[in-house]
Amino acid sequence: MKLRIEKLSIIGFGNVGSHLAAAFDRQGIHVSHIYTRSRDLASQSAGATNSILVERIEDLPERQLVIICVPDSAIPDVLNQISDSCPVAYTSGSIELETLPPRNRLGVFYPLQTFTKGSALDLSQVPFFIESNDAYFGSELFDLGWAISRKVNYASSQERKHLHLAAVWVNNFSNHMNFVAHEYLKSKDLSFDHLKPLLLETAKKLGTENPFDAQTGPARRNDSSTIEAHLKELSGTQKEMYRLISKSILDIYSNDKL
Amino acid sequence: MKLRIEKLSIIGFGNVGSHLAAAFDRQGIHVSHIYTRSRDLASQSAGATNSILVERIEDLPERQLVIICVPDSAIPDVLNQISDSCPVAYTSGSIELETLPPRNRLGVFYPLQTFTKGSALDLSQVPFFIESNDAYFGSELFDLGWAISRKVNYASSQERKHLHLAAVWVNNFSNHMNFVAHEYLKSKDLSFDHLKPLLLETAKKLGTENPFDAQTGPARRNDSSTIEAHLKELSGTQKEMYRLISKSILDIYSNDKL
Repeated sequence: MKLRIEKLSIIGFGNVGSHLAAAFDRQGIHVSHIYTRSRDLASQSAGATNSILVERIEDLPERQLVIICVPDSAIPDVLNQISDSCPVAYTSGSIELETLPPRNRLGVFYPLQTFTKGSALDLSQVPFFIESNDAYFGSELFDLGWAISRKVNYASSQERKHLHLAAVWVNNFSNHMNFVAHEYLKSKDLSFDHLKPLLLETAKKLGTENPFDAQTGPARRNDSSTIEAHLKELSGTQKEMYRLISKSILDIYSNDKL
Repeated sequence: MKLRIEKLSIIGFGNVGSHLAAAFDRQGIHVSHIYTRSRDLASQSAGATNSILVERIEDLPERQLVIICVPDSAIPDVLNQISDSCPVAYTSGSIELETLPPRNRLGVFYPLQTFTKGSALDLSQVPFFIESNDAYFGSELFDLGWAISRKVNYASSQERKHLHLAAVWVNNFSNHMNFVAHEYLKSKDLSFDHLKPLLLETAKKLGTENPFDAQTGPARRNDSSTIEAHLKELSGTQKEMYRLISKSILDIYSNDKL
């Protein structure tokens, strides 16, 4: 199938922008122009993708799709600098389409994944969520997503916000749990490496089981003596978190709410 | 290398017991006898491993290693029913060796992993932690562990407790974060499947990055408008958890404590 979008520009070349550019490049979709505030990072990668690095947003080509990959707070300002002739998509999970300055052919191209610059990632399994104020442009964005992923979906701003909030629990907060464990073991001169097989299995289990059934541990089995022993080991915010999360688990299984 | 332990008994045939039995069986270590309170589960699996299912703990063979795979609270009682002639190891992360009724050749054979009955698991990458009140018996347990895993370690009761507490954060609490996301999406008629690639990547990232560097999200970048929008979506204990965990993340990155 011939793609309607064969060339595009990218604004912002951090974790998301650099991964998208590499994925488009592999599929023969030409990232012809890149604008980024951080010149060093971009110039390296831009060389690899045959992109022109522009000095100002106004230097991006007219009438060509621009994908914005900047932090949420910078989106309105960036948007105002892009020529009205360009269709624009942004990659944020939380910004609602209707809260942005109105313009023709504005859309969302949201990849639900955590990106780390410099580490390869198979985008073909990453879910993309598409939205637009223009149905035809929306279908172009959908097809563009399909060129790099097998998991493209349309989603409203509300649905995207819900998915993003869920992602905060699954990624950001889980990562913080790992951080606490990491620091705790470091303070006891024990290696975090011991936990890595457990980390992987924890994630893999969710492929076949739902988290309700997968729950194990002291709070799940109401083992108050282990919980008390653990609380004695902790202090401050970590102790509060241990207590609150354990309480939340206990409540769910004791009341059998589900 | 010829193993000193070639035959053993298992008490408790839940998640841990059944996985250990299968792993021993694959390495030609004969699980000759099993005692379990739940007859149905055991009789199925015992057939596959050529084990004799005994009616009472006293019926286990004399002078043969017994591995106890029962909940922590049941360990002291089970231990009292095992013949003094049997060396005994238990698989708990939190029970300290010296708190148990004293006996000769008592040890720990602790696998740091989450087990789900019926789902295959490669034990060769699972860390085992060994402890004993008898150095020779300890080395026998170490070698027994080495027969099924490449990650065997000696650890004191204190070290094991620390590892277990860290595992609670990494597995139990992370799983609860996934549970909250799962319920939230269900309430919004959205599929948890969308989050599975993110779940896997979250765990995989920790193979190459530490959790401090891997942290992303609204709290990490002090994005208070997204945090406020998310809090409005939540209520009760989940709202408290969102606020507390976000505060914990904010504190770490704003104070640059590390």
